Parts: sequence; C-alpha cells; structure tokens
Amino acid sequence: MLWDSLRDARVIDLAHPMRRGMPQSPNHPPFRMTLERRHGDVVRADGGSAANEIIVTGAHAGTHIDALAHVSHDGLLHGGRPAADLQSHDGFRELGIETFTPYLGRVAVLDVAAAHGVEVLPAGYEVTPADLDKAAAGVSFSPGEAILVGTGWSRHWEDRDVFIGLTGGAPGPGADAARWLAAHRPRLVGAETIAFEHIPAGRGHAVLPGHRILLVESGIHIIETMRLTELLDTGVREALLVVSPLPIAGATGSPVRPLAVLP
Amino acid sequence: MLWDSLRDARVIDLAHPMRRGMPQSPNHPPFRMTLERRHGDVVRADGGSAANEIIVTGAHAGTHIDALAHVSHDGLLHGGRPAADLQSHDGFRELGIETFTPYLGRVAVLDVAAAHGVEVLPAGYEVTPADLDKAAAGVSFSPGEAILVGTGWSRHWEDRDVFIGLTGGAPGPGADAARWLAAHRPRLVGAETIAFEHIPAGRGHAVLPGHRILLVESGIHIIETMRLTELLDTGVREALLVVSPLPIAGATGSPVRPLAVLP
Amino acid sequence: MLWDSLRDARVIDLAHPMRRGMPQSPNHPPFRMTLERRHGDVVRADGGSAANEIIVTGAHAGTHIDALAHVSHDGLLHGGRPAADLQSHDGFRELGIETFTPYLGRVAVLDVAAAHGVEVLPAGYEVTPADLDKAAAGVSFSPGEAILVGTGWSRHWEDRDVFIGLTGGAPGPGADAARWLAAHRPRLVGAETIAFEHIPAGRGHAVLPGHRILLVESGIHIIETMRLTELLDTGVREALLVVSPLPIAGATGSPVRPLAVLP
Amino acid sequence: MLWDSLRDARVIDLAHPMRRGMPQSPNHPPFRMTLERRHGDVVRADGGSAANEIIVTGAHAGTHIDALAHVSHDGLLHGGRPAADLQSHDGFRELGIETFTPYLGRVAVLDVAAAHGVEVLPAGYEVTPADLDKAAAGVSFSPGEAILVGTGWSRHWEDRDVFIGLTGGAPGPGADAARWLAAHRPRLVGAETIAFEHIPAGRGHAVLPGHRILLVESGIHIIETMRLTELLDTGVREALLVVSPLPIAGATGSPVRPLAVLP
Repeated sequence: MLWDSLRDARVIDLAHPMRRGMPQSPNHPPFRMTLERRHGDVVRADGGSAANEIIVTGAHAGTHIDALAHVSHDGLLHGGRPAADLQSHDGFRELGIETFTPYLGRVAVLDVAAAHGVEVLPAGYEVTPADLDKAAAGVSFSPGEAILVGTGWSRHWEDRDVFIGLTGGAPGPGADAARWLAAHRPRLVGAETIAFEHIPAGRGHAVLPGHRILLVESGIHIIETMRLTELLDTGVREALLVVSPLPIAGATGSPVRPLAVLP
Repeated sequence: MLWDSLRDARVIDLAHPMRRGMPQSPNHPPFRMTLERRHGDVVRADGGSAANEIIVTGAHAGTHIDALAHVSHDGLLHGGRPAADLQSHDGFRELGIETFTPYLGRVAVLDVAAAHGVEVLPAGYEVTPADLDKAAAGVSFSPGEAILVGTGWSRHWEDRDVFIGLTGGAPGPGADAARWLAAHRPRLVGAETIAFEHIPAGRGHAVLPGHRILLVESGIHIIETMRLTELLDTGVREALLVVSPLPIAGATGSPVRPLAVLP
Repeated sequence: MLWDSLRDARVIDLAHPMRRGMPQSPNHPPFRMTLERRHGDVVRADGGSAANEIIVTGAHAGTHIDALAHVSHDGLLHGGRPAADLQSHDGFRELGIETFTPYLGRVAVLDVAAAHGVEVLPAGYEVTPADLDKAAAGVSFSPGEAILVGTGWSRHWEDRDVFIGLTGGAPGPGADAARWLAAHRPRLVGAETIAFEHIPAGRGHAVLPGHRILLVESGIHIIETMRLTELLDTGVREALLVVSPLPIAGATGSPVRPLAVLP
Repeated sequence: MLWDSLRDARVIDLAHPMRRGMPQSPNHPPFRMTLERRHGDVVRADGGSAANEIIVTGAHAGTHIDALAHVSHDGLLHGGRPAADLQSHDGFRELGIETFTPYLGRVAVLDVAAAHGVEVLPAGYEVTPADLDKAAAGVSFSPGEAILVGTGWSRHWEDRDVFIGLTGGAPGPGADAARWLAAHRPRLVGAETIAFEHIPAGRGHAVLPGHRILLVESGIHIIETMRLTELLDTGVREALLVVSPLPIAGATGSPVRPLAVLP
C-alpha cells in the first residue's frame, strides 16, 4: 500500500520555523505570534487549563506560496482577468490561494549553487538559462510537475540583514531563466529567497519580471523563502513534493510547510 | 517511484476553507483576512502590481491541530512538564507545534455515524467505546499511526450556530472513548467538531477530558474541525494521511490542511 | 488662568471601557487586547520588567468618531470628492481622521429620553424633529459647536445583545432629525448607539441616511457608542466637550475618549 | 463660561500622526492600519457605501501614555503589588490604563534644549537635575500637575533611524533627573523620546531607572514620543494640558493625543 512505501522514506521539512523577527519582506505585514491565555489564567473545575495565542501575519511571511491573484500586469491577472473586478473586502473572487489544488507529485531539484561548485550563490547573482541547463543535466521534466531552484541562500537564514538582501540583493532567476522554467510547464516552482527573482544589489523589488512570467503569463505558482539546505545537501535530483497551503479564501498566498520525500 | 504511485491517486482535502465568519470557538481570536494592497495601489514602472493581505487569527481556527503545549492538567503539560516554566512572550519553549514532525502515514477511518446508519450523529451524542468497536470492525491499528473519528458533523459547516453548538452541543468521544483511542497508541487523532470532545447541550467547554487523556496523558496530537464529509462518503476504512502544520515556534497549535490519499 | 477655572470642574468620562467582547458592530473587526510580555518574561539586570500588549481592532469599536472618509454616496465623499481616487493601502489621502482638528468647545445636550419622561427610549424608536425641538427648549446653538442626542441607550451597555440591537433595533435620529441637526451647522454630533441612526427592528444597517446627511452632505463628524448615562443624569443642557481622537493617518475613524466638563 | 475662555485659545496638538513605518520601539508590536472595506465594495440600495479598517498595534506606539502596570521592579508593581497576581489573558486587574483619570490641568514646560541654547539636545545626552533647575527657573510646581521635559528630539521624527536611536541613543532624564521630577510629585510627566530615559549610545533599553522611579516608586504616569516641537517653539512655560487616553481595560498603556491649550 501507499503508506508502506512511505514508512521508511526520508521526509525533509522545506519550511523555516516561523517566529517574530524572522527575515521577511518589508512589503508585507510582519509575522507575530503572541500567547493570549497561558496555563493558569483560566483553570477548569477539574484542573485543566488551555493556552492559546493570537497570530498576526502577512500571507507572504516565512515559507509561503503565491496565489495567481498575487500579481497583475497592466491591470490583468492570469488569463486576462481584470484585477479590479475581482478584488474586494472579501479578497479575490478568482485565483485566490484556496483554488490551488494541493500538490503531491514529483519535483525536479536544480541545484545551481552545486552547479557552480559553491554552497551559496553570491548576493545579486542572476541565475541564467545556462545555469539551469547545467543543473538540469540528466533530469527529465513533465508538464504539471514541480521544479525547485537551489541557490543555497537559505544558509543565510539566521543572518537577517543578509537574507533580506536590502543592500546586497539576492540571487535568483532573471527573466530569461523564468522563461526557461515556464517553457517546461511546471505547476509550481520554488526557491529559497524572499522573492523568486534576481534582485541586484540596491535595486530592491523595483520590477519583478519572474512573477509576471510565471504567475501572470503562465499560471505557475511560486513557493518562496523555502528551506532547501537539507534537501540540497542530499544531492538528490528528484523527489516527491507535498504542498498543502492553507485554503484562505480569496488570499494572495499562504504560509505553507512543504515536504520533500526522498525516493 | 513514489510519485508514480500517487499520479492517479484520489486526494481528498480534509480542511474547510478559511474565511471571516466561519464557525470557530469563541474562546479563540477570530480568523480575519483583509486585503492590504490591491492591484493598482502601487504600480511598478513596468506595469506590474502586487496585492497582499493581513491575517489575524487564532491558531485554533478552521481546521487545525493542537500542540501538546495546548492543554495542561494541575499545572503540568505532557510528560509532567510544569507549564509555568515553559511559557513566555516567545510562546512555549517545549511542546510547541513546531516540534510536531509532519505526518505522512496510514490513517484508520472510524465512521461512527455510518455505524449508526445516519449521516450525522445528533448534537450532544457521546461516542462510546462500543461505537468505536463497531466502526473499527475489521480495521487494524498500529502504534504511531493516525485515527479519524467520523461523526458527520462537518455536514453542518454552513450552519454556523448549529456547528458551533453553543446551545445544542456537539457529538464526540467521551472520556471512555478517548481512553479507547489512547490505548491504540496513535500519533494523532482527528475529528470534525471544534473540540475533540463530547459536548452535551448547554455545557460548553466546561471540562475537556478528551484533551487531558490524549494531549496531556498520552502525548497524542488532535486535529479538530476537519472536513471529513467527502472522505466518509467514500466508505474507505484506511488511507494515507498527510499532516504538515505550519511550524509556528512555540505555538499551541496551527491551522493545517490535511490530505487523505486513497489507496 | 484657564487651569484654575478647571480645578474644581466636574469631568465626566463619555467613553465605555474597551474590552474583548464589548458590544460593537459586526461590520467591523472586533476589538481585542492581548498581553504579550508579562512581568517576569524578561527581567533586566536591575530587576526591572516591562509588560506590553498587542491590540487588534477596528477604528469603529467602542466609543469612536467617524471621519468624513467613512461614508460615500454614489461614489462621492464629502465635497464631491470621488472616493475611488482617494483610497489605497495607505488609507485615505483626504478626509482621514487625522484631519479632524481636536475639539474643545461647547456642546448642547439634547436629552430626548428625558423629554419623553423615560430613562431609555424603546428599541427601534425614531427620534424626530419634534423630539429634538422639545429636548432643545431653551438651548441655544452656534455653528461649529457640538450637539449630543441622548436616548439613554448606553444604559444597555452591559446587555450585549440588546445594545447591538441586531433583532430589536436601536433608537436614533431618522432622516428628518438628521436634517434638523445639520441645519444647526454643528461641527460634530454624538449619541449612544452603535450607529447614529434610527435602526428599526430587524432592518440592521440596510441604509444609513443619517450618515449620508451628516458626513457626506454636511461635513459633520459623528461620535458613536458614547457613554452618556452619567452626563444625562446631571440634567445639564450645555457643557464643555473635549474630543481628541487618535491621528491615525488615512483612517475612516478612531476610538476616542471624549470628556464633558461641567460648568 | 468655560467654553468662552477657550474660544480663541491656541490649541497645540502634542501627538504625531500614526502611520505604518513611523518610528517606534522594536520591543512592541508595530502599528499598522489597513483599509478593509473600500468604497464600492459593498454599496447599499440607496447608493451609500462605508469604508473601514483593521488596526494592529502595540499600546506603546506613537504618542502614548504608560499605565502603572507597565513596569515592575523585583516582581512588584507600584504600591508593592505582586505583578504575577494581577496579570492574565484579561490584562491587568489593577493599574491598567483604564484606571488613569483623564487629565485637564496645568502643565509646566521645562525646555532643556532651550536652556542649552540648542534646538535639539545631542543623542545620548543625559538631562541632569541642574538642567531641570535651569529650565524651571521662575516656574512654579504644584503636586498633582503635569511636567513636560523638552529635548527637541521630536524634530528628528521624520528621520526614523536617528529618532529610534538604536545606535546613537537618545537624550533624556537620568536617574537623578527622574528623582528631581518625582520630588515635585506631578501626576504625569512627558517627553519626546520613545523612552522617558537617558539612553546612551549603543546601550539600548538595558535598564530603565526613570521608569522604576516614576512608575513603580512614585505612581507617576509617563507620556512618551510626544510631538513637543510646536509647543517648545512658543516659549511658553505653562499651559493647560489635556490627556484623555483610550480606556483599554487592563492594558499597560494607550496611544493618546494630548493637547496643550495656551493661556
């Protein structure tokens, strides 16, 4: 049975733990979890007590997935949908993250850092089609599957300022690499940086061609701020990927804890 | 390969969509997602625009999992840990939901409603060991696996007042049934109601013996407010269950989107 | 000096205390204050410790004032400003509550309940121009001052369901009474109910003519959910009113703690 | 009458506008106001539309007042109250900000910057008793009144990093100056910096003797992050001060918009 084949599989957690102060984009509401009731505040007649919390966060905090509603171009969302017609106080009537069907399927792992013989690509490095070709040597692709692009950037997770890259930028696929990926028609792509983009030093998120090409033009979902370190260290080129984001109705994304299951 | 066996599997979403006003316990901060930037608010030089949101929620909102830190008894958490020593503004130093290893494994489905020949158990019905015995006929159990208890209650999801059960109560396992479950030593259990408990009419959450027995005494995680309708309708008695909650450091739980994969 | 004349003045607090679960409109995010750090969580080297909290709330929670940006009619805000041009992720570029100049001046107190010889007007009662005439007997008005309309409704504050009036409605000025008020050209008006409106039983906030007449057509600010009990009990017909709302840039309103100072 | 004497008085706003990204202590939840409904999202039958927002903030954000519950020393709040006994999920049972009686009374303005012949005191400057003596020359004090200490620091409001002073520190009263102030037995004191303290360069909020002396030992409330520029520029040494914070039950403080009324 299915579960028998999984019993001894190695499952790798591809999400960073979420905590106050973790690196995230300054464009989004910061994550904050605060205990509300602590044990002892309210004790039931039998001695029982329940603690709880309040969580305030953007959907694009921590390891998260972008819904197709997240980005528009010239006023249009994926499929030529006018964004203005679909957004309201209830969120997006179409293309919200609740419309993403959870993914359990094959993922191709393209380790560009390894292809360069380094643990981490330099800040501001643009991943090119040639890089992806090299990292993909011997890897097959099928439409509807997932592709992860490794840069090693999650090794900087504990160094907040470097990770965010406000001054130094962050490595990632440029427009050409985004087109390379889109041409393989994956259902979703993922990477370690806050934005699935090439962010040159000092430029910030001035333009996001990768988001346009993937989300708007191609309908491909993007997972960002992934913790790929452990997976990249295994050297595997393909795995089972599980992506089950919260079905937040009308939202432009969701925090998510993706898992890689090694064959 | 693993992914080949999954390609044509039926995947059933076991979570309710999360939206403002959905039924949830009044003991926890209500879920609310509000768009912050809408398309057109900030348009980049190239015509691109990104929408985003702010989310405020309790961890115990929508379909969610309880961490072992959630409940204490006489001041002690699971394993006899003094709750007062482990809780702070940073949440729980031990037993927070980030310590739950994502689960991919077998689940036994005990449909008590079906055992009674009904679609939904009556409000306030106490699920007994005899009920579980009957629903479990022919089902095997192994320690460390998952068990779901079907009451059909998620069929009331659209009827907020009934679902919450403030006046009428909700069906669920009483203390004896909780002990029955704990005796099978599962890693996690799940059900459709807001609390994994028998809630008699008008009593509210006065005492929660199920939580004490499962979380505190046995270290068994609980998933609540599951959308089991679709799974129960298939009649399967076992499936692959995927549970990958957000790794919110120190939190007493997390919203989660569990998946059942049918063999 | 100014302060000498105030030394022995009676100051009456016109705001309800803000706490989780207080009566408020279901149309707005519910107020919630949660302690974050408690004493003892972080103790400084010298034995000092600071507690703090996180507050989540709508601007229209508790005793609050409406900014002119709060309501539009046929797409236009006060002064014929197109609402769509002024609203963004930064709030309102014009007519936000930060543009309200704090008020320290005379207020006329029109106690309609007293004019009817009752402590509280019935739920769903429409305050008419004749009521206001009667309550205003002997009271003078000057443009730019404030007018409070007493209904006694704040006596229901502790009875949440009654106060909100979801089923029974709430007493308040109808369209004609709103015009009566606007004709006196006050800078602001205030009352005890959640909406400064006549809310018939079962109708809810289907239409809000008072808001249109006052905010949109006349540029008059509205204070709602005031605690007028103590002031009405004094029987004074005029007082000094102090209204200093939070200058939340671009917001449609703000919680506020107005004070009446008796002559 | 009272209001006649106020008609032509000059009222000075002593609060900074509150907006996302304004300078505030990193120890507290950041202020954020997000529009929820915008005009046009929900249009009533008559053409009316209401916009609203969600606000997330710490109580110690923007111009704000500290409740006596804010700081403890060796586990004790003001009056020797054990902090642990008074704090819960409902906030503080005693000494919360709702217990602060709104203040309308005289304030003495001690402009230490002017006493030094500068517009702004240097970052990290410690205000001494000698400074206060000099700034107070000719000013009388009465117990139960208010005292403001001007440093000119609010002139840095628009320069976030300087204002916060994480690296350079901020000017303010040292322990001796705090004792000088407490000896005059005011009901409240206020100043322009984030903490009413002398913060040397690079030390951060390691110890807060001023808070201990004023809040814990003396029961004197503190207003912080005041916008005193305009008031200091008038050169007045006394004024009427109005302080009416939100009555947030059990909170350790509240944003507030204090007003100075010039004689």
